[in-house]
Amino acid sequence: MSKAITSQNTDYSKWYNDIVINANLADHSAVRGCMVIKPYGYAIWEKMQQTLDKMFKETGHVNAYFPLFVPKSLFEAEEKNAEGFAKECAIVTHYRLKTNPNEKGKLMVDPEAKLEEELIVRPTSEAIIWNTYKGWIQSYRDLPILVNQWANVVRWEMRTRLFLRTAEFLWQEGHTAHATKEEAIIETKKMLDVYANFVENWMAMPVVKGVKSANERFAGAEDTYTIEAMMQDGKALQAGTSHFLGQNFAKAFDVKFLTKENNLELVWATSWGVSTRLMGALIMSHSDDKGLVIPPKLAPIQVVIVPIHKGAEGLTKISNIVLPLKEKLEQKNITVKFDDDDAQRPGWKFAEYELKGVPVRIAIGERDLANGTVEIARRDELTKEIVSINELDIYIENLLINIQQNLLEKAKKRMTHFTTKVDSYQDFKKTLDEKGGFVLAHWDGTSETEEKIKEETKATIRCIPLNNTPEKGLCVYSGKESTQRVLFARAY
Amino acid sequence: MSKAITSQNTDYSKWYNDIVINANLADHSAVRGCMVIKPYGYAIWEKMQQTLDKMFKETGHVNAYFPLFVPKSLFEAEEKNAEGFAKECAIVTHYRLKTNPNEKGKLMVDPEAKLEEELIVRPTSEAIIWNTYKGWIQSYRDLPILVNQWANVVRWEMRTRLFLRTAEFLWQEGHTAHATKEEAIIETKKMLDVYANFVENWMAMPVVKGVKSANERFAGAEDTYTIEAMMQDGKALQAGTSHFLGQNFAKAFDVKFLTKENNLELVWATSWGVSTRLMGALIMSHSDDKGLVIPPKLAPIQVVIVPIHKGAEGLTKISNIVLPLKEKLEQKNITVKFDDDDAQRPGWKFAEYELKGVPVRIAIGERDLANGTVEIARRDELTKEIVSINELDIYIENLLINIQQNLLEKAKKRMTHFTTKVDSYQDFKKTLDEKGGFVLAHWDGTSETEEKIKEETKATIRCIPLNNTPEKGLCVYSGKESTQRVLFARAY
Repeated sequence: MSKAITSQNTDYSKWYNDIVINANLADHSAVRGCMVIKPYGYAIWEKMQQTLDKMFKETGHVNAYFPLFVPKSLFEAEEKNAEGFAKECAIVTHYRLKTNPNEKGKLMVDPEAKLEEELIVRPTSEAIIWNTYKGWIQSYRDLPILVNQWANVVRWEMRTRLFLRTAEFLWQEGHTAHATKEEAIIETKKMLDVYANFVENWMAMPVVKGVKSANERFAGAEDTYTIEAMMQDGKALQAGTSHFLGQNFAKAFDVKFLTKENNLELVWATSWGVSTRLMGALIMSHSDDKGLVIPPKLAPIQVVIVPIHKGAEGLTKISNIVLPLKEKLEQKNITVKFDDDDAQRPGWKFAEYELKGVPVRIAIGERDLANGTVEIARRDELTKEIVSINELDIYIENLLINIQQNLLEKAKKRMTHFTTKVDSYQDFKKTLDEKGGFVLAHWDGTSETEEKIKEETKATIRCIPLNNTPEKGLCVYSGKESTQRVLFARAY
Repeated sequence: MSKAITSQNTDYSKWYNDIVINANLADHSAVRGCMVIKPYGYAIWEKMQQTLDKMFKETGHVNAYFPLFVPKSLFEAEEKNAEGFAKECAIVTHYRLKTNPNEKGKLMVDPEAKLEEELIVRPTSEAIIWNTYKGWIQSYRDLPILVNQWANVVRWEMRTRLFLRTAEFLWQEGHTAHATKEEAIIETKKMLDVYANFVENWMAMPVVKGVKSANERFAGAEDTYTIEAMMQDGKALQAGTSHFLGQNFAKAFDVKFLTKENNLELVWATSWGVSTRLMGALIMSHSDDKGLVIPPKLAPIQVVIVPIHKGAEGLTKISNIVLPLKEKLEQKNITVKFDDDDAQRPGWKFAEYELKGVPVRIAIGERDLANGTVEIARRDELTKEIVSINELDIYIENLLINIQQNLLEKAKKRMTHFTTKVDSYQDFKKTLDEKGGFVLAHWDGTSETEEKIKEETKATIRCIPLNNTPEKGLCVYSGKESTQRVLFARAY
């Protein structure tokens, strides 16, 4: 029953894994690199999905579904995109098993059922979608197309970690088609803002919005916009990306439209996505050595009520107080669990709900009944206080808002703490090694310098921040002239 | 612009396909047998999903997610199940592409990246899930497990039809684990009732609940419960199944639990699923030669309002009436579209929304304004009436309820019409050929007879109805004694 969690300071990576496993979020599976998302983890993901889906629809998007498989000839049509994903593709080559004549009860791949053309399990869907859009787009009247898909994708990763990097993961991918470059760029930025809004105001994680350098760009994109978050161990995490794809896929799949002026032109494209990786970010952003911490807006259980009583009569007295309270809270759309299971002791339950990250715990004993009070523990600060039972629903409602804000504030402070301006390569390396976090430094703009820095320090350019103010300086690596600082970090 | 639909009487199969394509529900894709579900079709599927998901949760189930791939050794563990699906499996054999040295810009499967063990793309998830449950279940305290998964699955079909039979389809699959046989059987039947309730009261389709014969059982099940619906052309369609799996998967994956009495016992299992095939059933159940007909509860747009006006001033006058009405309807959770697009004429819009199956159309012209009336057309009956604009929201609300009921009543009448008792093989064949529908006939209970009848008439036993009253008789084929009638039909 006692589920020991390695402390963050001892081994951050093990701490992370212990939380994922012990809080019942996900599990390893029999398939190399693929995870099982357990019900409690999936319930958090569902809340993320529902929130994002609503945001996508409010910005004019609709959902659709495209095939899991991409024929190789389509996959390779946009060369840069294909090249970017070729090394991590699961490939279907056969469509039938047959009885193994040499081993009773065993099956083997039927060599006679070989596909004429191999099918790639989608690592991303630009190819299959743009091949489809070709049939949907004739004139400017058919534009824009604002489609999103919730789906599973597969990228064959050699080193996997639950949620953060798995061979199969769940995500959404938006794929839009536009008549003009300007409109496509506006869409790209709009969806980046949607992501930033979601991550900040639901996940309670501040982000830096920026543009990727050419090296870090999505394969096949003209520009990749990103939101970068900062974890508790000083490593960055890319939380979402939005790509301006230019006319690359329209060219590859010959997707043209007739303009109002009757000219035939190539269509402009964007794509944007977030994945179950966000679960990893959420865990690493707020949790502690006691377990998971979930922002109230995403918590499957927001309030747990634990009775402390002797015998059935004691429970009845407590239930008489708790059940109307539960109902009041539920009327405010607050999710409440009244854990009156007699098989476990209150102390065990306290630890269990701390491990699971339930934002607010109410304990109510027989003495509380007499005093007209309850004990309230908040998960974010691990503090307790005695609160009157009068208007407790309003108190709880405000407390949840307060916890949501507090988690964001703490994460903001962390990001500020973990953002360091440096002006020499020595300070650059020292900051990375001793403090970690984001390093704002001048860069000469060349891929060569970027690669050298990555090789020597494992830090990559996370982004060129959108809110940058131009500032003349000298590249920390090459000493060449630079016009702005960019954001470096070691990253997940 | 004119999208001709083949009439049902001319060619039912072509009529079906025309509706799917022209109403923008789905499309063929570049991948053999895989479809693209277009936004309008997906919006209907989303409504189905949301309704079912709520029903599953209300009956105590939670969602989770398991891997897309099943290693071959796990896949073959439950032999009957494996045998049942072996012939239609997509198989991943490699995990990397490389540049083709012989063709510039082309890729090829990297022969050095061959998997040690092949991965089957899940045709169903019992194997991977029961292999996982083994780790989740130790004692009776861990039971029951009531998990559902929304996922894509792949079954390599040779002859495919949009929605009805596709190589990849979307579905949900419930997988539950229980301490006793009785509890598992109760669960199996409970979920069949959930499906029947959904199909009747949301999809407006009556069903016959029953048990499959051994021949038609799910591979690996002890009993398969089914709901069978009747299409307009007299063919049956299996709309959902719920399987009592006994201890077959527990045996195959060695899943045991410690009982309260401290004995080690095998776990009992169920699984149950419905898929995007329901979209096909929905279309074939209610639609007509003008296009799709959707029951109001599943319609993405429930009411469309078309203004009939001259110039901007006319539109403004109409909008002044329409916008408050739209708001009132939306307050009643009715989905309304006000189509004030000037680029299309009213007549074109009328045909378009009939094709799309919008249940209620309101037309409002300048003369109506003067009279304080609107014209209301209902899609199910293709009738029109003039209605006062006073309390129109209440009128519409009731009309939608009425349309929902009317569609169910019509489908019920059809099912009654299409259910024929026969007592000789001659009548059996004659009924199938001349009338179609369900044929209730005595059967001797042997697989041999069942297969002969299938061979000679293409009719299968759809189910042994649950509400059967015992009745002595003679098998229509063999003349042997029989204790009850079973339901035969040609089916999709």
